[in-house]
Amino acid sequence: MIEDNVVFIGNKPVMNYVLAIVTQFNNGAEEISVKARGKAISRAVDAVEVSRNRFLHDIKVKEIKIGTEKIETDRGDSNVSIIEIVIEK
Amino acid sequence: MIEDNVVFIGNKPVMNYVLAIVTQFNNGAEEISVKARGKAISRAVDAVEVSRNRFLHDIKVKEIKIGTEKIETDRGDSNVSIIEIVIEK
Repeated sequence: MIEDNVVFIGNKPVMNYVLAIVTQFNNGAEEISVKARGKAISRAVDAVEVSRNRFLHDIKVKEIKIGTEKIETDRGDSNVSIIEIVIEK
Repeated sequence: MIEDNVVFIGNKPVMNYVLAIVTQFNNGAEEISVKARGKAISRAVDAVEVSRNRFLHDIKVKEIKIGTEKIETDRGDSNVSIIEIVIEK
């Protein structure tokens, strides 16, 4: 099985993740999975949109999935929303 | 043409929008479109996930679309990301 390329979105500026996406496509990736959780979900959408509108006009969104993940915190378990945006050339 | 039910996500607490979604389904809606832009995108995913996990176990995500919208600000045009999550019974 070939491991798909994944870009995890965190709290850095959007352009950092745009650069990661563009680089992975330029390195030959056919498909990239952009993943984020919690408040970073908005930034994941921004990263995909900026990549598509400004740098890689030939990529398209293949699939978007949302879900919920349990995370452990000091004050017990907590739920956090997640998103996965799969983009392809 | 029948106008679909739409819930716009803003800056209020997530539960306000969960209540709006649950109410619309209870009022007979078969399908609801949850829309948000900018930083509210994360909250839109939260609202759908909380509705689905805690209140309406029989709803599912039909389609998720993302895009970019131009908005006019004091300092000229600016781009903002948007999301539309269509959920159905």
